[in-house]
Amino acid sequence: MKINTNFLDLKDSYLFSTVAKKVKAFQESNPDKEIYRLGIGDVTLPLVPAVVKAIHDATDEMSKKGSFRGYGPEQGYDFLREGIAAYYSRKGVKLDKDEIFVSDGAKSDLGNILDILHPDNKVLIPDPVYPAYVDTNVMAGRKIDTAQGNQSNSFKPMPDKNYKADIIYICSPNNPTGAVYTYDELKEWVDYANSCKALILFDSAYEAFVGDDDLPGSIFEIEGARTCAIEFCSLSKTAGFTGTRCGYTVVPSELEFDGVKMNSLWNRRQCTKFNGVPYIIQRGAQAVFSEEGLAQIKANIAYYKENARMIHEGLEKKGIWHIGGVNSPYIWLKCPDGMTSWEYFDHLLTNAQVVGTPGAGFGAMGEGYFRLTAFGDREKTAEAVRRIVALS
Amino acid sequence: MKINTNFLDLKDSYLFSTVAKKVKAFQESNPDKEIYRLGIGDVTLPLVPAVVKAIHDATDEMSKKGSFRGYGPEQGYDFLREGIAAYYSRKGVKLDKDEIFVSDGAKSDLGNILDILHPDNKVLIPDPVYPAYVDTNVMAGRKIDTAQGNQSNSFKPMPDKNYKADIIYICSPNNPTGAVYTYDELKEWVDYANSCKALILFDSAYEAFVGDDDLPGSIFEIEGARTCAIEFCSLSKTAGFTGTRCGYTVVPSELEFDGVKMNSLWNRRQCTKFNGVPYIIQRGAQAVFSEEGLAQIKANIAYYKENARMIHEGLEKKGIWHIGGVNSPYIWLKCPDGMTSWEYFDHLLTNAQVVGTPGAGFGAMGEGYFRLTAFGDREKTAEAVRRIVALS
Repeated sequence: MKINTNFLDLKDSYLFSTVAKKVKAFQESNPDKEIYRLGIGDVTLPLVPAVVKAIHDATDEMSKKGSFRGYGPEQGYDFLREGIAAYYSRKGVKLDKDEIFVSDGAKSDLGNILDILHPDNKVLIPDPVYPAYVDTNVMAGRKIDTAQGNQSNSFKPMPDKNYKADIIYICSPNNPTGAVYTYDELKEWVDYANSCKALILFDSAYEAFVGDDDLPGSIFEIEGARTCAIEFCSLSKTAGFTGTRCGYTVVPSELEFDGVKMNSLWNRRQCTKFNGVPYIIQRGAQAVFSEEGLAQIKANIAYYKENARMIHEGLEKKGIWHIGGVNSPYIWLKCPDGMTSWEYFDHLLTNAQVVGTPGAGFGAMGEGYFRLTAFGDREKTAEAVRRIVALS
Repeated sequence: MKINTNFLDLKDSYLFSTVAKKVKAFQESNPDKEIYRLGIGDVTLPLVPAVVKAIHDATDEMSKKGSFRGYGPEQGYDFLREGIAAYYSRKGVKLDKDEIFVSDGAKSDLGNILDILHPDNKVLIPDPVYPAYVDTNVMAGRKIDTAQGNQSNSFKPMPDKNYKADIIYICSPNNPTGAVYTYDELKEWVDYANSCKALILFDSAYEAFVGDDDLPGSIFEIEGARTCAIEFCSLSKTAGFTGTRCGYTVVPSELEFDGVKMNSLWNRRQCTKFNGVPYIIQRGAQAVFSEEGLAQIKANIAYYKENARMIHEGLEKKGIWHIGGVNSPYIWLKCPDGMTSWEYFDHLLTNAQVVGTPGAGFGAMGEGYFRLTAFGDREKTAEAVRRIVALS
């Protein structure tokens, strides 16, 4: 028996384990000092009441013979697929329910989608970005090139017409930079992908943080996207589902390569290797898209965005270059005084007891940068900002 | 962009859609006749009270700031991994919690495990069997051979020493035949796998139906299995979780190929492409393994097994050759009078209004055989049996 040796090419990721180790060491030497965590990309507000009620109700259904549900459709229940389609229609995007596949989260589907794509495809991945895009392709032995983000392009790399990609990853609002592509910029990517018959894998996990009307929250707001893109989204950040696990993937009916419909391929993959999301979780997810649920999650997102605004204001006062934090829960800053990402990490931890995430952990172009997140507690975030501003 | 063309080699599966179509047509022509369904492999009894309470309690935790949980460990929470380890210890199997990976079901992991295995491996799959084993390997372009089940080996094929497999699937109790390997038979498979350095993928989804003390419910009850096997199990049939989605995969710490630990490879795969099972579902699953939960699921399994016994008794009376139904929810019978699987399907539907599953849908060796399931309602099962017995 031979293993998949591509796994041996994976780089070990020490980012979050090193962060945890350093924080632990500091705490042991300084047991009296409180730590302010602006590092994790995890939500902290509880599930909203509409979701909690829906989950309780569905659990009661599962406890009685007449209303118990066994296997559900692998693609998700129609009640949820229709709820998601209605959510898209608010952005002016018309989707058929059969184009929506309910999943246990964007991370699963972003990895599993590669099952239906040939290993020989050439992959273009932005740098810096969420590291799983690279790792999942390394596992399949694909050739990877990077689209480099930097200050001069505001960490929004644009297509290079002299280069032909097969698979293109776009994450907007971006993790870790918080950068959001405009309509015109995404149109350029869509036109490029259509012209070279490439596939865009669009990660819209942070779409709920887009507040500006002139910024797109879905690739399908762009003309031409239905023939070149698949979109992955999640309720993790939209509705605090990081521990509740529900997302969805949109595969347009028109999308095809080599004359084969991607929707049929993905459907076959899911029916063979997936058995759907728990019924009670799907009922909770449905409640997110109700009028009541949408109002409740909007209040939570406003809470996080106010945290982001405070961080932005503090960095502004301090004269630290940064982006994000307006239509995103992430703030991406240039480490002051020419510090490397890890030097700034140590500096913040030692002198302000603030924990963030070194940008170098998100790709080579992240070196010298740093990510702060708005998912923390209001008072602790305020204190963290005060401490960053007060630093000499 | 090129698709994974292996998908084009998949055979379309018309088994359950054809069953549904034939039943629908019959009902439309015979609107007054009641249908007795012994075809589906899905449970019908509701979740047990211990599970329902645990899910409600966990949902309440998720609704409050102090007890809310975001991202959990990709491998599952320790409370559940320890609960599963304790369940195994009742069978005399000692597992470390790090050898247990909580999943959303055996179907997902049985498909996803192939990510860590080389496409060039030669696969040995029993026939008849759960069709996903074949399809998931066709998707990866692997060469597949079959281990043929038939009446003379009681649908328990044994290893052929003149043939070298790399990956071996075993499903015991088997779907669809209900056949259960003995300790000695499994030992022969384990010795064979160790001798030719093959990997056994052991599907124990129906282990909870094994009642005889002299039959193994886990491959790890067999000496030598820790160096050649991975086990996949699920709460779907154990605790009625078909719509609630929780399973687990056991990868022993010793298991390695080419000097690489399979536990590390699978851990890396899961951390990169999976984000764990919902917290509230894991709490429900934990309750399955409590004293109270185990007693409650035992009663449900006894209910299904009594259905199976009734079917067995009816077939016995009728003189129809069959196996299964004792340590399994499935009864596998030889179609009487030399009928093909589909001929017997039509015969039962037309003359007794009983719906079963044609054995031909589970592989070429299933032709001429038929599967009945014990997951139905008691009274309807009793009536179905009366009707089968009464048939001329």
